[in-house]
Amino acid sequence: MQIAIINGPNLNLLGQREPEKYGHSSFDGYLLLLKSRYTDISFSYFQSNIEGELINELHRTGFAYDGIILNAGGYTHTSVAITDSIAAIKTPVIEVHITNIFSREEFRHTSLIARNCKGSISGFGLDSYRLAVEALIEMNKKNG
Amino acid sequence: MQIAIINGPNLNLLGQREPEKYGHSSFDGYLLLLKSRYTDISFSYFQSNIEGELINELHRTGFAYDGIILNAGGYTHTSVAITDSIAAIKTPVIEVHITNIFSREEFRHTSLIARNCKGSISGFGLDSYRLAVEALIEMNKKNG
Amino acid sequence: MQIAIINGPNLNLLGQREPEKYGHSSFDGYLLLLKSRYTDISFSYFQSNIEGELINELHRTGFAYDGIILNAGGYTHTSVAITDSIAAIKTPVIEVHITNIFSREEFRHTSLIARNCKGSISGFGLDSYRLAVEALIEMNKKNG
Amino acid sequence: MQIAIINGPNLNLLGQREPEKYGHSSFDGYLLLLKSRYTDISFSYFQSNIEGELINELHRTGFAYDGIILNAGGYTHTSVAITDSIAAIKTPVIEVHITNIFSREEFRHTSLIARNCKGSISGFGLDSYRLAVEALIEMNKKNG
Amino acid sequence: MQIAIINGPNLNLLGQREPEKYGHSSFDGYLLLLKSRYTDISFSYFQSNIEGELINELHRTGFAYDGIILNAGGYTHTSVAITDSIAAIKTPVIEVHITNIFSREEFRHTSLIARNCKGSISGFGLDSYRLAVEALIEMNKKNG
Amino acid sequence: MQIAIINGPNLNLLGQREPEKYGHSSFDGYLLLLKSRYTDISFSYFQSNIEGELINELHRTGFAYDGIILNAGGYTHTSVAITDSIAAIKTPVIEVHITNIFSREEFRHTSLIARNCKGSISGFGLDSYRLAVEALIEMNKKNG
Amino acid sequence: MQIAIINGPNLNLLGQREPEKYGHSSFDGYLLLLKSRYTDISFSYFQSNIEGELINELHRTGFAYDGIILNAGGYTHTSVAITDSIAAIKTPVIEVHITNIFSREEFRHTSLIARNCKGSISGFGLDSYRLAVEALIEMNKKNG
Amino acid sequence: MQIAIINGPNLNLLGQREPEKYGHSSFDGYLLLLKSRYTDISFSYFQSNIEGELINELHRTGFAYDGIILNAGGYTHTSVAITDSIAAIKTPVIEVHITNIFSREEFRHTSLIARNCKGSISGFGLDSYRLAVEALIEMNKKNG
Amino acid sequence: MQIAIINGPNLNLLGQREPEKYGHSSFDGYLLLLKSRYTDISFSYFQSNIEGELINELHRTGFAYDGIILNAGGYTHTSVAITDSIAAIKTPVIEVHITNIFSREEFRHTSLIARNCKGSISGFGLDSYRLAVEALIEMNKKNG
Amino acid sequence: MQIAIINGPNLNLLGQREPEKYGHSSFDGYLLLLKSRYTDISFSYFQSNIEGELINELHRTGFAYDGIILNAGGYTHTSVAITDSIAAIKTPVIEVHITNIFSREEFRHTSLIARNCKGSISGFGLDSYRLAVEALIEMNKKNG
Amino acid sequence: MQIAIINGPNLNLLGQREPEKYGHSSFDGYLLLLKSRYTDISFSYFQSNIEGELINELHRTGFAYDGIILNAGGYTHTSVAITDSIAAIKTPVIEVHITNIFSREEFRHTSLIARNCKGSISGFGLDSYRLAVEALIEMNKKNG
Amino acid sequence: MQIAIINGPNLNLLGQREPEKYGHSSFDGYLLLLKSRYTDISFSYFQSNIEGELINELHRTGFAYDGIILNAGGYTHTSVAITDSIAAIKTPVIEVHITNIFSREEFRHTSLIARNCKGSISGFGLDSYRLAVEALIEMNKKNG
Repeated sequence: MQIAIINGPNLNLLGQREPEKYGHSSFDGYLLLLKSRYTDISFSYFQSNIEGELINELHRTGFAYDGIILNAGGYTHTSVAITDSIAAIKTPVIEVHITNIFSREEFRHTSLIARNCKGSISGFGLDSYRLAVEALIEMNKKNG
Repeated sequence: MQIAIINGPNLNLLGQREPEKYGHSSFDGYLLLLKSRYTDISFSYFQSNIEGELINELHRTGFAYDGIILNAGGYTHTSVAITDSIAAIKTPVIEVHITNIFSREEFRHTSLIARNCKGSISGFGLDSYRLAVEALIEMNKKNG
Repeated sequence: MQIAIINGPNLNLLGQREPEKYGHSSFDGYLLLLKSRYTDISFSYFQSNIEGELINELHRTGFAYDGIILNAGGYTHTSVAITDSIAAIKTPVIEVHITNIFSREEFRHTSLIARNCKGSISGFGLDSYRLAVEALIEMNKKNG
Repeated sequence: MQIAIINGPNLNLLGQREPEKYGHSSFDGYLLLLKSRYTDISFSYFQSNIEGELINELHRTGFAYDGIILNAGGYTHTSVAITDSIAAIKTPVIEVHITNIFSREEFRHTSLIARNCKGSISGFGLDSYRLAVEALIEMNKKNG
Repeated sequence: MQIAIINGPNLNLLGQREPEKYGHSSFDGYLLLLKSRYTDISFSYFQSNIEGELINELHRTGFAYDGIILNAGGYTHTSVAITDSIAAIKTPVIEVHITNIFSREEFRHTSLIARNCKGSISGFGLDSYRLAVEALIEMNKKNG
Repeated sequence: MQIAIINGPNLNLLGQREPEKYGHSSFDGYLLLLKSRYTDISFSYFQSNIEGELINELHRTGFAYDGIILNAGGYTHTSVAITDSIAAIKTPVIEVHITNIFSREEFRHTSLIARNCKGSISGFGLDSYRLAVEALIEMNKKNG
Repeated sequence: MQIAIINGPNLNLLGQREPEKYGHSSFDGYLLLLKSRYTDISFSYFQSNIEGELINELHRTGFAYDGIILNAGGYTHTSVAITDSIAAIKTPVIEVHITNIFSREEFRHTSLIARNCKGSISGFGLDSYRLAVEALIEMNKKNG
Repeated sequence: MQIAIINGPNLNLLGQREPEKYGHSSFDGYLLLLKSRYTDISFSYFQSNIEGELINELHRTGFAYDGIILNAGGYTHTSVAITDSIAAIKTPVIEVHITNIFSREEFRHTSLIARNCKGSISGFGLDSYRLAVEALIEMNKKNG
Repeated sequence: MQIAIINGPNLNLLGQREPEKYGHSSFDGYLLLLKSRYTDISFSYFQSNIEGELINELHRTGFAYDGIILNAGGYTHTSVAITDSIAAIKTPVIEVHITNIFSREEFRHTSLIARNCKGSISGFGLDSYRLAVEALIEMNKKNG
Repeated sequence: MQIAIINGPNLNLLGQREPEKYGHSSFDGYLLLLKSRYTDISFSYFQSNIEGELINELHRTGFAYDGIILNAGGYTHTSVAITDSIAAIKTPVIEVHITNIFSREEFRHTSLIARNCKGSISGFGLDSYRLAVEALIEMNKKNG
Repeated sequence: MQIAIINGPNLNLLGQREPEKYGHSSFDGYLLLLKSRYTDISFSYFQSNIEGELINELHRTGFAYDGIILNAGGYTHTSVAITDSIAAIKTPVIEVHITNIFSREEFRHTSLIARNCKGSISGFGLDSYRLAVEALIEMNKKNG
Repeated sequence: MQIAIINGPNLNLLGQREPEKYGHSSFDGYLLLLKSRYTDISFSYFQSNIEGELINELHRTGFAYDGIILNAGGYTHTSVAITDSIAAIKTPVIEVHITNIFSREEFRHTSLIARNCKGSISGFGLDSYRLAVEALIEMNKKNG
């Protein structure tokens, strides 16, 4: 089973950026833990601050992988282009957020991209990613 | 570890109601599966169509349990009273939805209660409940 | 032919409440007249001020009766839960209002529940209920 | 008893226009049925696609007839001028719609003209017109 | 003189719930103090988390008591049904809030039910209830 | 000096329509008075309930007359087409209203057509028309 | 007959301020012309940039004069206090504007104070004041 | 191949009306050029300032012609009735505008009728009509 | 104990202004009654129609008095400057209104200044002021 | 004559992406057809999913080419930066869309970039591009 | 070179008012520093809590000074009258704010007066005033 | 002292783009002047039309420099991602704009990114950058 994790803007700063909100661990460290917990699954990882490069990666993985875990960061709320690219591909996409976007500023209370995602998980810190993996495994079982 | 599952309006009809949207299994059957998968956890279950009875159950379990999984159904989007009751209790609450509320009618695109929940999971069918259990286990480990 | 009449909040005060707006007759008296006019039809009657009890009654009658006449009162404009319950059941629901909701305050000018009802009748005083009976008879003829 | 039926834009196409939504019968055929069912009542019929001609007909019949049944079609939602003309005349006006306007596009969810009508009936196909006749008979009895 | 105090959702948790916002005393203790201060007045007390039960209590006391003090909690901002029930009864209703609702979240800045209340008092902690009693005494004097 | 008076929908009912709001005199009677007061001026008069016929009359008079006095009635608030026609012609147009549109329903508080008019006069009963004549005389003097 | 003219903020700069919009004459010059044209009328004149002083003047003249001509300038669109003061006094107030406020910025398209004025005149340059005088004379005749 | 060109309000003034915006040529001259360029196509032409007459013409041509080119002028943005009539007919309709409606006033930035048109062309002066002809020829080829 | 009462625009007209809404007594008479009832308290009184003078008085009393009772009249709903001044001072401010602002026009349904006040009392006629005195005495006791 | 075609996000997937909406042909194939039909014109082609690269290409071609055909995809509705870049260059830009954006989701009903484009063509499938070429040829003739 | 500094409501409390937000220095002390740093410039200083007095000062200095530095405080967001007065005068006005208005409450996120100012500086504490002086010196050089 | 200047979309066209709005000098020329005026400061310069590259540069300089001057161009009003990146870094960011964004189109009147900036300067042409340098020097002094 092949899963792509795609992280959007500012997630490269994880561990360094507002640690009281986003935690002290970098994503690299977390990814190692995740891989060691799910050894049957092959993970690819991509991060970019550039909206269009996220779309490129969605296109690249969106016809070949079994699942995509997408944290689109600040593009979550406004990007019609990413929303369209999720509709354009075949692989199911799960939206994740580290923080609970509903308990932050008003402009974060709706997700535009969510309408084309399979499901949405937010507020569990980095564990949101693992829950998405769990969800994809279950979906895979049903369709497999 | 004690987890309360609280289901809101119309979820008693599961399996019977719009099966193309909500699936063919009743919640009772699902609950048995869940219990058999997580034998270490003690689950309580409550369903009501009455907003205030959901609040009563949140109060009853909200100072004694380790976690609450809440699918508030149609009250999700408008109930200030449930939102307040989540803030008033001690136990962390996780919001779940069977369908992806963001790909449905406009008036379902924001969750009022989410702002006081620990996290939010939607769109994975009944598996949304299991993912919430997974999340609570992880949270428990960290604080344990 | 079996028809359920379901009345929402404050309709128990009919005859007593703002008579210049809602008239001087109680609903019980009116129901007797209705039954005597349509002797072929078996009517059930339920009134509650509690949103969830209205949903319970919609569930109870919504798979067995030939038609439901619903005056959801103040829940008409905001209840996602009742709206969902109408979609969840099989029996056609007709929305009625005693007053013309469009000539009252702005917040009464849209009906949320109407989107899942078969049809809507408002402004004819208690006669709105009889018109709904007439409509159900006609619908029954077509499908019968 | 004299009743005027006034149909607005595109209702001349009935039977021909989107039959899955508006049905297969023309209005002329329906009118014959209605007349044969209510032989005591004298009906006049008028249809126009022109907003101002509807107003002219409302003026012509609005001081002489016992009731007006108005399907203002697309002018329902925006016409201040028709709304004003209903207030300007003496005869009670009943708004009818063939489809349930509340289960269609957002911009059809409010009726501007309804505020000056006696009552409103929508969603029963052509039977909406008959229900309006029934309502007018009842109103006539009370005042007669 | 007979006064009914009606408390809405979550007010049963007083003393226990977010004490920095709502204080440390339970309502029961406060009620004793109130009764001992106004020995001439007969107080009834009712609390429910269920919207419709609040309406039932408004109906029960609304034709017999001299005044009603209502803290509708989270239903304050959205309940058309409670708003209607206040209009339907005879006894004057005074709206009270423990906290200043205007210095909290945006969605608490308007009170729907206030439009049918005699007056509104908010922000004085539990003393808001006593001020309402004072107001009712004064009103009683004028009309007495 | 040639002045065209153009009246929109429902103004043919003047004297007959809601006399407590619009007065008891018909426009014909008023027009005679106006002509007798301003004998130097040649007046044309046109009334229609049809939006497009008002546009036709604006076109007919809009390149030949010295001034146009327009009471567009219910089309005032929504007609882009009339607004455009005022921009398309040469003759200055003065908007008049018998009632004060700002003290009526919310949807009458803005005038769309006003943006292309020379000026606007409302609230003086039929005298609004005479004030418009006075304004046109003054404008004529300045440019003459 | 006694008429008070009250000018609001920035109208002291008339003749000096944006002459392409407001003209080249000062208000003092214009007032002399007005007085010489209506010699039977006694005019008082007051200008202030201070909202509350305009209210003071409305109070001073509002129980004694036959009419008030008010150009509230920038306070037109937002001042609840001036709106209230117009309702509080007895003398009829006519709102005037030199420019056509509807053809300027969006935030000038509604007048808050207009709802309590007798009528409204805008867009005729300084002649707007004279038209208001004409209107007051006519109103005086009718009531006189 | 038969194409109907239907022009809405104020387009009869073309050449005469705001020439800096709409150009100096009348539509008649342009139509001759168009006919001489596409000699295989039979064109009908209709212009009216009356909304309902445009609907009549859409009905007349909408079941017989191969294509309709519609410039609905000011009715573009608000006419539910025209929007409905386009849905009611069979012939594909192409919306055209002489000017670029998106670079004009805010209220011209959305087209209500566009939702039922096949496509939309705006901003090319009179050449917008020719481009619509080109589009219809291509559509005809595909379906032919 | 020192209490400042500050009254905003139009409250100088009390007794004279719309007596059916505001009552027949002037504020001076009421103040005497208040002083005679609370002889231990030293009251200062200030009224102005000028927004900035209200701010001056808030500054003057806001560091020296034990409490301020403010009826900001029409400035209640829009004055950022008064709102800021309440935040800038030390003395607790209680907002009062004679009428129930929530049962009047829409634009009176929110109070901007309330967010910085200690509490809010409205709808009890002049007795609103006495209730505010009661509240301040109670607050003083707790802190004293 | 030199024309630049610039395609935005997800248009690289043409033929592969939602073929029922966007068709089965890739853009490359279509471009060959276009070139073979307009042999006198030299076409450049650029596609990117990255907003800023589209701006770069607009800058590169915007001072040298005779026309630009831009399908900005999902950036159409929100990109102030692309809107600004169209204003910043000299070459006329024509906006094209394959689908009719007005018959899709609400958030696609306005085009932000359109305000700076010469014209707009949408809804004709890939033929929208050819119509834009036709428009540019005509514009070139007039200016040439 | 002559510069007027005009401070609006509550700025007289500087040093005393919410020092964590506005700092501990009074404006008088700051002004001395400013004067000693720019000895070539003659500064006038004016503070008032009264909107109209700010307008008076803008009029007084607005035709004679080389620059005006205006901190309109709470009037920034709502005062049409101050906005108009800035347009009415000749001297360039620079808007300053001590705090960053964009990181405070929503209602402070737009400045109405800014549209007529030369430029805007906010968020630098009292140094915002010095930066405005720097800006005026530079502007003076260019025009000098 | 190290300052990074970061310019967003279309600012590479400075001098070439709409010179009546943005001036005739290129940014390179201006940068030389700036460097020669502040010889003690080391400036880095970065321009990109790509939103994500601006974020990259903010990350690169945001932990090492003493200050960042950011003109985010069209991304100012909508980019959540840039807004987040400013919060994620340590170096204070000052927002600058060449033009006064408040006197341009409505959609430019709010700055989303401003909420996380230290301060904001707009409307002074290229001198806005120098004022930002001045502000950073002052801030440096205080903290140094």
